Amino acid sequence: MKIQIKRELLLNNLNNVSRALSNKPQMPILTGMKLDVKNNFLTLTASNSDISIQTKIEASDDLSIKETGVVVLPGKYFCDIVRKCDCDSLLIQTFEKNSVKILADQSTFTLNLHDKSIFPYIAFDDSQNFIYLDGINLKQIIKKTAFATSPSEAKMVLTGVSFTVNGDKLEAIATDSFRLAKKYMKIEGMNAQIKAIIPSKSLDELNKIVEEVQEIVQIHFTQTRALFKYKNILFQTRLIEGNFPNTKSLIPTEFITDIKFNKQELINAIDRASLFVANDLANVIKFTINEQNEILISSSASEIGGSLEKVKPISCSKYLNFETAFSAKNFLDALKAFDSNEITIHFTGEVKPFIINSDYDVNHMQLNMPVRI
Amino acid sequence: MKIQIKRELLLNNLNNVSRALSNKPQMPILTGMKLDVKNNFLTLTASNSDISIQTKIEASDDLSIKETGVVVLPGKYFCDIVRKCDCDSLLIQTFEKNSVKILADQSTFTLNLHDKSIFPYIAFDDSQNFIYLDGINLKQIIKKTAFATSPSEAKMVLTGVSFTVNGDKLEAIATDSFRLAKKYMKIEGMNAQIKAIIPSKSLDELNKIVEEVQEIVQIHFTQTRALFKYKNILFQTRLIEGNFPNTKSLIPTEFITDIKFNKQELINAIDRASLFVANDLANVIKFTINEQNEILISSSASEIGGSLEKVKPISCSKYLNFETAFSAKNFLDALKAFDSNEITIHFTGEVKPFIINSDYDVNHMQLNMPVRI
Repeated sequence: MKIQIKRELLLNNLNNVSRALSNKPQMPILTGMKLDVKNNFLTLTASNSDISIQTKIEASDDLSIKETGVVVLPGKYFCDIVRKCDCDSLLIQTFEKNSVKILADQSTFTLNLHDKSIFPYIAFDDSQNFIYLDGINLKQIIKKTAFATSPSEAKMVLTGVSFTVNGDKLEAIATDSFRLAKKYMKIEGMNAQIKAIIPSKSLDELNKIVEEVQEIVQIHFTQTRALFKYKNILFQTRLIEGNFPNTKSLIPTEFITDIKFNKQELINAIDRASLFVANDLANVIKFTINEQNEILISSSASEIGGSLEKVKPISCSKYLNFETAFSAKNFLDALKAFDSNEITIHFTGEVKPFIINSDYDVNHMQLNMPVRI
Repeated sequence: MKIQIKRELLLNNLNNVSRALSNKPQMPILTGMKLDVKNNFLTLTASNSDISIQTKIEASDDLSIKETGVVVLPGKYFCDIVRKCDCDSLLIQTFEKNSVKILADQSTFTLNLHDKSIFPYIAFDDSQNFIYLDGINLKQIIKKTAFATSPSEAKMVLTGVSFTVNGDKLEAIATDSFRLAKKYMKIEGMNAQIKAIIPSKSLDELNKIVEEVQEIVQIHFTQTRALFKYKNILFQTRLIEGNFPNTKSLIPTEFITDIKFNKQELINAIDRASLFVANDLANVIKFTINEQNEILISSSASEIGGSLEKVKPISCSKYLNFETAFSAKNFLDALKAFDSNEITIHFTGEVKPFIINSDYDVNHMQLNMPVRI
C-alpha cells in the first residue's frame, strides 16, 4: 500500500471515522483503523461494539494512489499524527512486513500494524426499508429527544430513542420514565413502516458528524441495525432490542391552566433557583401560583438558604391557587430543547404530568413529572 | 448591615476574593466570606489554610452604605448568586437574626449566616521588609518559574518558588530536582534583603488576579507570610519553612556545544515525538547529532511504533557525535516559558544537565536533566 494524500482531506475524514474507534484495551483490534486502498479510492473504517463508520475518498489531485493494499493501523496514534503534522500532504506506505511509514516534511513516523485478518468484516448494506431526512431535520430530532433517554441500562429500551415511521409520518420519542420528549415530522413522498430503537450514544456521535445543512441523509433499517448515509460517510449503529413502552396514554390532553412564558427569562429564573438544589440528586424546585396571581419559583437548602423568583408570564389562561414541584435539571433540559423564544406550560394537576410546547416550534412536546414533596 | 451595590463592581471583587475560599467541608467557617461594612467602605475577606484575600470597596455612586455591620456568608453561594443575576444592582441586608436577604430585581435570595465570631482574625499588616514590582514583571517571574516546582510534598521546600532579594537584585528559582527554572531581575531603587519560599499554588492564584499591566504590586515579607498589595486587593500567602537548596553549584558554566533553534519549530517537533511516549511516566525522547551533522529527535513505543524528526538549527557552535535523552514534558514546559522566537540549548555532556536560554529573553534560564536510557 502506498498513497500520497493532502493532510486536510485525510484529517477531515479521520475526524469522522475516529468517532467509532474503541478505547477499550480489552478489544485491541477495535482500537485499529482499517485503510483499504483500491485502484480508484481509499476507504477508512473503524468500529466499536455500538457503531461502525466508513468513509470513502476517491482518487484525485488530493489523493494519489501508488499501490493498493489493506492495513489496520493503531487508530488513535494515526489520527494524532495527522492532527499534529503541519505539512501539506503525507506519504503513507507499508514498510517491511509489519509496519507503515508516514512521511510528512521533516517527520517520519512508523506505526506497527494490527493483524488485518481479525478486523471484523462489516457489511454496510442498504435495505429496502429506508427513509431520508435532511441534516437539519435529523439534528432537530436528536437535539429534542436524545437528552431525555435513560442513562441507566436497567431498562435497556429506555437508553435509546424510539423511531416510528408510518407512511410519511416519523415520530421520535425518548423517555427515562420521569420525563418524555417527542418530535413528530411529516416527510413528503416518504412511504415506509419502521419501528426501531436507536441508542442515544450513537445519535450523539452522529450529531457531531452531520452538519446543520440541507444535505440528504438516507437511513436504512434492518432488524438489528440502522445505516446512515451522508456525504461520503457510512454510519452504522446497532439497534436496541425490545419493545418501547406505549407512551400515548401517558400524555395528557386536558389541562387546568396554560401559561405562556418568555423562554429565556424562565431559564434564567430556574437557573438561579437551582443554585440551592444543585447538590441534591432530585434538585427539586417549587412552582407556585399564589392568591395575588403571582407566579413564583422557589427553592431552599435547609442549611444554606433559599431563593424566590417572581416570573411574569406572557399570558395565563387561568390563575388558580396552585403549587407543584419538579426537577430543575429536567425542566431546564426540556426548555433548552426549544428553538422558539416563547414556550407554554400546560398543567393537569399538582402531582400530574405537565407538558411544554410552543406555537413556534411545532410538532414538538416535552413532558415532565412533578415530584411529591 | 444594609448596602446597595452595583452588580458589576461586586462581581469583580468577588471573582478575586473567592480564590481564597476553602472548598474543604471539614472547615466550614472557611467556606464563608466576610463582609465588613463600615461608614465609608466595605471589605470582603476570605481565607483558607494557604492564602487570605481582602478587597476594599469605597462608598460611591456604585456602593451606597445604609447600615454598617459584619456578616459571614456562605461564600460559594454568595458568588454564584451575584454571577447568575442579570440585574444592575443588588440590595443586601441582614434579615431576622441569622440571615441576609439579597434583592435583585424580581429575585430574592436568603442566605443563612456563619457564626462571625469564629471567622479567623487575619492581620494584613505591612512590613518594613518590602519590595515593589509591576504586574508585568511579577507575572513574568511566576510564568517562568512556578511550573518547575515539585508537585510532591515529600520535600516541602521544593513545592515553592524561592525569592531572594539582595539590594536591588531579585532572583526567583524553582526546582523539582529534575529541572530548574531561574529568573533574575534588577529593580531600580530597591534595597532589601529577603529570603522566602512562596508556595507555587499561591503564586498560581495570584497570577489569575494580577493583570498584565504596569501597575505596582507591593510585596511585604515577614518570617512566615508574604503580603501582595495590588490595586484595592490584599493578597496574603503563608511562606514555606525551611532552607531552599543551594542550586548555584548545579548550574553548568562550560559547554561542549550550543545550538540555537526556532522555538516554535522545536516545540512542534517535540510535541509530535511525544505522541509515542505520552503514556509513559518519564516520556523520554532522544536527541541526536549524527555523523551527517543532522539533528534528530526520535521516540518510540515498542508496541505502537515510533517517530523521527529532523530539526534544522539556526546555528550550532560545534557538530559532534552526540546522543542524549530527556523528558519531553519537562523540555516542552521549559521551552514554553520563553517569550522569544529563538532559544539556545547549551549541552555539557550526554548525561549531564543542559541549560536553555535566549538572547531575547534575558536573565532567564531553564535547566533540564537528561535521563539515562
